[in-house]
Order: sequence, then C-alpha cells, then structure tokens
Amino acid sequence: MKLPALSQYLPILDWGRRYDRDRFVGDMVAAVIVTVMLIPQSLAYALLAGLPPEAGLYASIAPILLYAVFGTSRVLAVGPVAVVSLMTAAAVGNIVDSGTAGYIAAALTLAFLSGLMLLTLGVFRLGFLANFLSHPVIAGFITASGILIAASQLRHILGIEAKGHTLIEITTSLWSNLYAANPITIVLGLSATAFLFWVRSGLKPLLQKIGLPPLLVDIGVKTGPVLAIIATTLAVWGFELADQGVAIVGAIPQSLPPLTLPSLSPDLISQLLVPALLISIIGFVESISVAQTLAAKKRQRIDPDQELIGLGAANIGASLTGGFPVTGGFSRSVVNYDAGAKTPAAGAFTAIGLMLAALFLTPLIHYLPKATLAATIIVAVLSLVDFSILKRAWTFSRADFAAVAATILLTLLLGVEVGVTAGVITSILIHLYKTSRPHMAVVGRVPGTEHFRNVRRHSVETQPHVLSLRVDESLYFPNARFLEDHVAQYAADKKDLTDVILMFTAVNEVDLSALDSLEAINTRLREADIRLHLSEVKGPVMDRLKRSYFLDELTGEIFLSQHEAVKALDEEAPATG
Amino acid sequence: MKLPALSQYLPILDWGRRYDRDRFVGDMVAAVIVTVMLIPQSLAYALLAGLPPEAGLYASIAPILLYAVFGTSRVLAVGPVAVVSLMTAAAVGNIVDSGTAGYIAAALTLAFLSGLMLLTLGVFRLGFLANFLSHPVIAGFITASGILIAASQLRHILGIEAKGHTLIEITTSLWSNLYAANPITIVLGLSATAFLFWVRSGLKPLLQKIGLPPLLVDIGVKTGPVLAIIATTLAVWGFELADQGVAIVGAIPQSLPPLTLPSLSPDLISQLLVPALLISIIGFVESISVAQTLAAKKRQRIDPDQELIGLGAANIGASLTGGFPVTGGFSRSVVNYDAGAKTPAAGAFTAIGLMLAALFLTPLIHYLPKATLAATIIVAVLSLVDFSILKRAWTFSRADFAAVAATILLTLLLGVEVGVTAGVITSILIHLYKTSRPHMAVVGRVPGTEHFRNVRRHSVETQPHVLSLRVDESLYFPNARFLEDHVAQYAADKKDLTDVILMFTAVNEVDLSALDSLEAINTRLREADIRLHLSEVKGPVMDRLKRSYFLDELTGEIFLSQHEAVKALDEEAPATG
Repeated sequence: MKLPALSQYLPILDWGRRYDRDRFVGDMVAAVIVTVMLIPQSLAYALLAGLPPEAGLYASIAPILLYAVFGTSRVLAVGPVAVVSLMTAAAVGNIVDSGTAGYIAAALTLAFLSGLMLLTLGVFRLGFLANFLSHPVIAGFITASGILIAASQLRHILGIEAKGHTLIEITTSLWSNLYAANPITIVLGLSATAFLFWVRSGLKPLLQKIGLPPLLVDIGVKTGPVLAIIATTLAVWGFELADQGVAIVGAIPQSLPPLTLPSLSPDLISQLLVPALLISIIGFVESISVAQTLAAKKRQRIDPDQELIGLGAANIGASLTGGFPVTGGFSRSVVNYDAGAKTPAAGAFTAIGLMLAALFLTPLIHYLPKATLAATIIVAVLSLVDFSILKRAWTFSRADFAAVAATILLTLLLGVEVGVTAGVITSILIHLYKTSRPHMAVVGRVPGTEHFRNVRRHSVETQPHVLSLRVDESLYFPNARFLEDHVAQYAADKKDLTDVILMFTAVNEVDLSALDSLEAINTRLREADIRLHLSEVKGPVMDRLKRSYFLDELTGEIFLSQHEAVKALDEEAPATG
Repeated sequence: MKLPALSQYLPILDWGRRYDRDRFVGDMVAAVIVTVMLIPQSLAYALLAGLPPEAGLYASIAPILLYAVFGTSRVLAVGPVAVVSLMTAAAVGNIVDSGTAGYIAAALTLAFLSGLMLLTLGVFRLGFLANFLSHPVIAGFITASGILIAASQLRHILGIEAKGHTLIEITTSLWSNLYAANPITIVLGLSATAFLFWVRSGLKPLLQKIGLPPLLVDIGVKTGPVLAIIATTLAVWGFELADQGVAIVGAIPQSLPPLTLPSLSPDLISQLLVPALLISIIGFVESISVAQTLAAKKRQRIDPDQELIGLGAANIGASLTGGFPVTGGFSRSVVNYDAGAKTPAAGAFTAIGLMLAALFLTPLIHYLPKATLAATIIVAVLSLVDFSILKRAWTFSRADFAAVAATILLTLLLGVEVGVTAGVITSILIHLYKTSRPHMAVVGRVPGTEHFRNVRRHSVETQPHVLSLRVDESLYFPNARFLEDHVAQYAADKKDLTDVILMFTAVNEVDLSALDSLEAINTRLREADIRLHLSEVKGPVMDRLKRSYFLDELTGEIFLSQHEAVKALDEEAPATG
C-alpha cells in the first residue's frame, strides 16, 4: 500500500512547482480586480456581522493565504460571505451586545471553533455529512437568509437602531424606531440602492450593447459598489453630513491584521458550539458548491475532505488575525475565475492588495456612510432570494416541498439556526416516514421475456397458486412489521395459495428487526402450508442472511432470478400451471 | 364507501354479542388465577414506582375494565408493569420527592398525559411510529431496565435508603448507606429471593416431573410469590419484627379506587411531556408485542391503532382512579391466556377480584415486609435480563450491535429516558449513514438468461463500450453527490465508453437533490460524448421523473428492462459487440 503523497494534504506543492510567467500575469490581473471589489464587500459584511469594518478586511487576508496553501480549488476566494456573516451576528448577538469588546472576542472564538470543527471533519473524512443538507433545504435557507439580511440592513438605510434575528423581531424593531429616521441618511441610502440596482439591471445591458467584452462588462458591474462608495463618501465629506446625523464608518486603525487570541472560556465555548457547527456546515456547503461549479468548467477535481481542511485552516487563521467566520464566496470566486485567475497565487496577491488597503486606504473611507454599505449588501443578497424553488419542489414532490417550506418559514420566523436545523430534520423525517410504508407490487412476467413487472401497470402473466411480491424498499426496523402485515393480508386474500416469492431486487439491506419479521412470515406461512421463497437476493444481503438461521428454516428456496423461481415452481406443479 | 362500523372502535360490541356459558366459565377460572397472582405483583410495582402499595391495586382495576371495552386483544391483561413502573419512578422522581402528596399527583398526571398521547396516536392512526423502536433496541432496553430495577430494589432487601435512576447513582447510594443495613430484613429478603428462585428453577421441574398438567405447573409457579408473602407476613407479625426495624407495608386504606383528578399545572405538564411520550411508546411496544404473540397463537388479529385507543383509555382511567401509568403486561397476560381466558370479560372479573381485595384483604398485608415485595420484583425482572441479543446482533450486523450496545450502556449509565432515546437515534443515524454510501455494482448478463448480476460475484457477459451500473439504494439527498462522484469515477476509468446504463431496480425513490445529481451526471457525460440510459425504472419513480425536465434532456433512453437496454445498444453498434 502506498502512503498518500504529501501533496495530497498540501496541494500547493502540486501547483506551486509548475508556476510560470503566464500564470503569474493571469493571477495578477485577477487579483487587482478582486481586490477592488473585495474592499467594499468586506467592510459591508463586517457591518452585517455586527463587527467594526476593519474586521472585514482582516477576515479576508489570512484566510485567503491559508486557503491557497491547503485548499484544492484553483479559483475559490475565501473571506466573509453574506449568509455566514448573518449567522455570526445571530450566534454572537445572542450572547453579547454588539459594539462591545466581548462581541469581537466571541466572533474570534466562533471562527476558531468553526475552524477546528472543519479541520476535524476533514481529517476524519466526514465531508459526506454535508450531504444531509438537501438541495431544496439549502435553496430555501439561502432565500430566507437573503430576506433576513436585507431586512436587517434596512436600519442603516433609515438611519435608526433596530435589533433582532427573526423577521418579526426585525420588522417590529424597525417600526418602533421609525420615528427617529434620518431624512438625509434615507436619501443617501435609497440613492445608493437605486444606483446599484441600476448598475445590475441597466448598466450591464448597456455595456453589453456597446460591445464590451464580457469580462469588462463584469468588471464594470462589479465596480458599481466602489463608485457608490466614492460618491457618497465625497458627499458626506463635502456637505459635512456627518454633523446632520448621517452614520459614518469613522476612524479605522491603519494597520496590518492584528494578532489575536480567541477566548477559550468553557462557558463561551459551550454557548457557541452548536452555532459553530451550523456555520461550519453551511459555510462548507456554500463553498464546495461554488468550488465544484467552477472546477467542473475546467474539468478539475475538488476533494471535499481536503476542502474541509482548507476552510478549517482559513477560519483558524481568521480567528488569530482579528477576523470572523469565513468561507468560499460565490461572487468573489466567480469574479476571480472570470478575471482569469490560474492558481491559488491569485488569492495570495489579493491578500497583499487588501493588506495595502488596510495600511493606506482606511483614512479615505472615514466619511463613508453606513447606508452605502447597507445598500451594497441589500442589492447583493436580494439576488440570492429566489422563491422558484418552492414551485419546482411542489411540482416534483410534496416531500421536497415540505422540506423547503419548513426551512423558509422557520428561518424567517425563528432565525437561521432553527431554520436550517428544522430543514435537515424535516427531510430526514420525511424519508423515514416514506421508507416506513414501502411500496409493494404484485408482479407477473412480461410476455415473451424473463422480466417481471407490476400487475397493475403492465399486462403480464401470473400463476394462480403463486404470489410474486416485489418489495420496493430495504427491509429495516421502521418497515419490518409493515411487511409482516402485508404478506399476511395478501396470503389471507388468496385462499388457494401454495407459494409466496418475495422478489428482493430492491432490498439493499436486511437488519435484525427485518430478519425477525422474515422469520415470523416464514413461520406463519408454514402454518398455513404455504412456502416462502426469495428471488434476486443481492450479494451483500445474501452474505448477511447466511449469518443467521433464517436460511435453515426457510420453507422454500432462494432463486437467482425471479424467472428461475417461477420456472421451477411451474415445472414442479405442471398440473396447476 | 362504507363508514367503519361502531364495533371497530368498540370491540366489546363484537365479542359481547356472542358471549355464552362456556366462555363465562373459562373467563371466571382465568380471573381467579390472575387475581391471586396480581395482588402481590401490583403491590410490588407500586413500590417500584415509588408509590404507596394500594396505588398498584387501583392501577389494575379501572384500566382492566376500560381495556376490556376498547382493546382488541382477547387476553391482554393491562396494569402496572415493571419497565413502565421504573420509568414512572425516574420521571416523577426527577421532579418531586417520593413519599409526598406531590409525587402521587405527578404520577396521576403522567398517566393522564400518557393516556392522552396514546389516544391521539390511535385516533390519527400513528401506531407505526412504534416501529422506530427496532427489535434490538427494545431487547437491549428491557435487559438494561431489568438490571436497573433489580439494583433499585436491593435497598429493600438490605433495609436501607437509596436513591438514583442510573446504575452508578444506585450503587453508590447503596454503598454509602450500607452501614445502616438491617440484618433481619436481609435474612427475610434473601430467604424470599432464594425461595422464589427455587420456585422457578427447582419447583417447576419438580411439578413437571410428578406429571402435573402444564397449566397446574404454571399456577404452582405463579403462586410462589403469594406463598412467600404469606410466610414472611406471618413471620413479621408473629415475631414482631417490625419493632426490630423491618420495613413493612403498613396501614393501607380499605376502599374502592378513589376518584382522583390529575394536576394540570402547565409547569408539571411541560416537565412530564417527554417522559410521558417515552412511557407511551415503550408501553405500547411492550403491550402490542404481547398481544400479537398471543393473538398469533389463535389466529386472531390485533389492530395496532385500536390498541393505542385501548391503552389510552386504560391510562386515563388509571389517572382518574388513583393509579399510575399502565400497559399490557407479559406475565399476567400469559397466565390469563394459559388459564383459559376466552374474552376480555376475564379482565372484568379480575377487576372485580381486585376490588374485593382492595376492600377486604388490605388489613391482612399490614405486616407484609417490603423486602418480600422487592424479592418478587427482583426475581421477576431478572428473567427479562438477556444479554444474548448482544451476541446475536454482533453475528448478524455491526450496525444492529451498535444500536443494542448503545441502548444497554446508556440506559445503565444515564437512565431509561436517555437510553431508549439514544437507541432510537443510533438506529436512525446508522441507517442514514449506510444509505448515504450505497452499494453499487457493475453488472453483466448471466450467460443464457436475461438476468444481470454483479461482475465481481458472478461469471457474466459484458460489453466493452457499455457500463451497466446497478445502484443499490434509493436516490435521495444523503447519497446524491455520492452517485455523481462514482459515475464520474467509473467514466474516467473506462476511456472508450460510449454508453452508461443506470439500472434502477433498487431505486425506490428519487428526490429533488437526486434529480439535480442525475441532471448533472447527464450533462457531464454528454460533454464527454457518453450517453446516459436508465433501465427497469419502477412505476412510482417514473411517475416522478415525468414531472421534471430530466427526461427531455436525457441523452439516452429509458428501457423497460436491462436486457432490452443491452440488446438495443448491441443492435445499434453490432461492430463493437
């Protein structure tokens, strides 16, 4: 057996070795574009998370570098993202008041815990756990989170205070503070929002129409927030609007990311454990979806377990450098990809750009109104809101619809943590309910073939004294008794029965409860002088049955195929055929 | 459509109409035997539940009558049982101190809540929920409960105080109070225990050897506790042992069951809600197992949902007449059955017998030592302890073993409520884990047939450019991505591939996440110029797929059978065959 190469755990050894001039230029161009876009985004997500704006810059620097070393995606850009920032605000805001030193410390601890969890999941190769978040649940959760985020940012547009982590809390809080709304802030906020919407819906088609190449169109659109920031900052500075009550970002320290140590008080840890787990899983799912989407375009491979390690390192890095929980972001990664990033070095160059910004640009945004940042968040997240998943799920299956609807409703009404947990639990319960009442079909032979299908859906041949029953589910505890009852029912309905064949094509598992039921069925049928046969038992199931006494007691036989079973019973009793 | 007959909800209308002299005699004989056996048992289980002894008698009277009206089993005897009494002690003991009026009131509330829950489950026909307690979990739980019960009763044998609901709590409590042990109580308790063990292990074979008919042997054995009670009561009375510190039952009111009203304080209800649910489910599972075992012997049918109603009525009855949670008991029902009970009227006669006992016999047991009652409990429950389930599960499947082991361990270490909950959750998690990494098999044709099997287990024919993959699991969110990865892997390994056939024999369900994965697989294979086909898609799955766009986008075809699929691809490209 070969030990895994070191490069499996340090993907940088793989791409770093082949780095050249061409790749350098591509990476450099992408880095400049992403840096310009990331500055307002980072500030805005820090605001969303309830943290001082510089935390957003810090959270974008070390994580990008660490992901470049440990991650497997060539173009994923790691940093603060909307949904995780919202979850951070919800988790930390439940424990400490925003604006305090304790709040910042708790955010560091949250990032640290989340990093540890991601690393642990990665080392133990438990990435598959993220699959328990079904697609509809994720879609519903993102939509509901988008609404919550937009609602929570309205307060900055209105220039008032408001709290809360559910739609009802936020709206009542907004409503009761509405009297204090600041007209100038509202004008600034609404203008910025309108401008940013126009950039998306008006500028983009315009640039496309005048024949700009797609990359430039995209850059034009993505620099919209920068323009809004420059314009509103100048307005606040020029007209001295801060004196009129417009909330501004204010003084930001000019510094590289500070070295910080997350608090490890057991009390804090125990309160943040569940939120950290949820943030880890949601962050991982978001990140891996982006990474896989982009990798598929270039036929590259993403290793989910290594991704966990990359994101874990990034979060631990964030917690040690004044940041907060981060993950791979959709918009920044797409820009990075479209701008031509070739390797994770692009991320490293972006980190350098952001470091320069943290050192030299922060005085320039002193007068940046918070309303502008809120506007960039609102416009960004409203593009996440997409109720079409409800319709799609409804058309396809009521079960999926129930899971989406529960996720959306509970996220809006009870917050992100309850919402996503409820979504997962609902999906699992629905699955258990369905498998507890499996579909069963009486089957007969499709004429002229060796193929057996449901007598109700196909025109097939059956034998009078033989019941061929296809069990459409693995046999395990929730449905074991159901099978017993059904076979008893079928046997009772068909008085001249001599043989029952259970067709095991769809039985992928037989557990001990089901074995007990099979033994009970065998015994009861024997008492009624009916033999029990099995057909098409799969290898793994057969291996399992051989470890029990069931095969010794079975009154009938195990047939390789349903066709052989029916043929054998036919030959045995030609008179009844 | 016919409305359900009233007799479906009131089974008494069915058997009551055909009642005759023969049945009366059978029922009467059974009732006398059961009454004699139930008196010590009821007192003992009240002691186990932490309640005054008369509560045991009361809990046996109204419930028997109500079950006779609403239950479907002809011979089930409802009343206090060991495991439910232990769970009652655990639930109520967590809230109120034993021996107080509040304790008795909380036990009434617990019975009331449990009754309401059982009724609700019955009316909404949710009896299948009990199936989520798998056989191994039940077996493990009963074994662990037996140990806990025996340990908890040791204090009466030793004549000391001891508390606790876990094995560690009980043993440390026993140990620290051991200095106060009463030697006379120990002699009485150990003698009674030894005598009762001898009745089971020595007397029974003896009676069988002298040729007594089985029923009389059984009656002889079952009257053992009565003999022990008479002997030890006389000893305590004759030698005035109560003055020597032997704990006795003491004064019991001579009365019919009192009318009681359970407390409905919201605080108490919220504390008892979860225990009541667990007691309801455990009680229901125990009861229905007994009922079905006995019904099967006479080919009678038990309706699980109607049983819920019967047990619900019995528990509400218990809560209104000074009792505590009850269910169908194994030993009393078997005696009832063996003694020849024909109809639920036997239960009614037993109730009358117990009423007479409550009215006239209670003064006779004033001097009954508690140690004797403890001895009857210990001997009874140790027969429930059976670790062989561990070995059986280990041989059959590690998953079942894990569920049993978790149940036994956690019940002993953390108590009944945690134990049984952990058992259910472990079983479900194991199932989810297994289905999240489904077995897949590359299949080929068994020569000379139309049957396709795993290439690794059977000698089969395959085609060079076609990959036939049998997916051995329903496709749903936990395994959707797993399928994507695997198909990609197989396709990458087989360079000259032109066609992939997914054989859907074992796919009983496709949810929205899996649909997304199928679409992704289709797209990726198309980009590599490989067609995707499905074969043997079941009716319900096909119905589902038709509601999506997947079939429009599918590059290949849907074949009725795997054989047809391979034949069609063969004919299409005869040169490659």
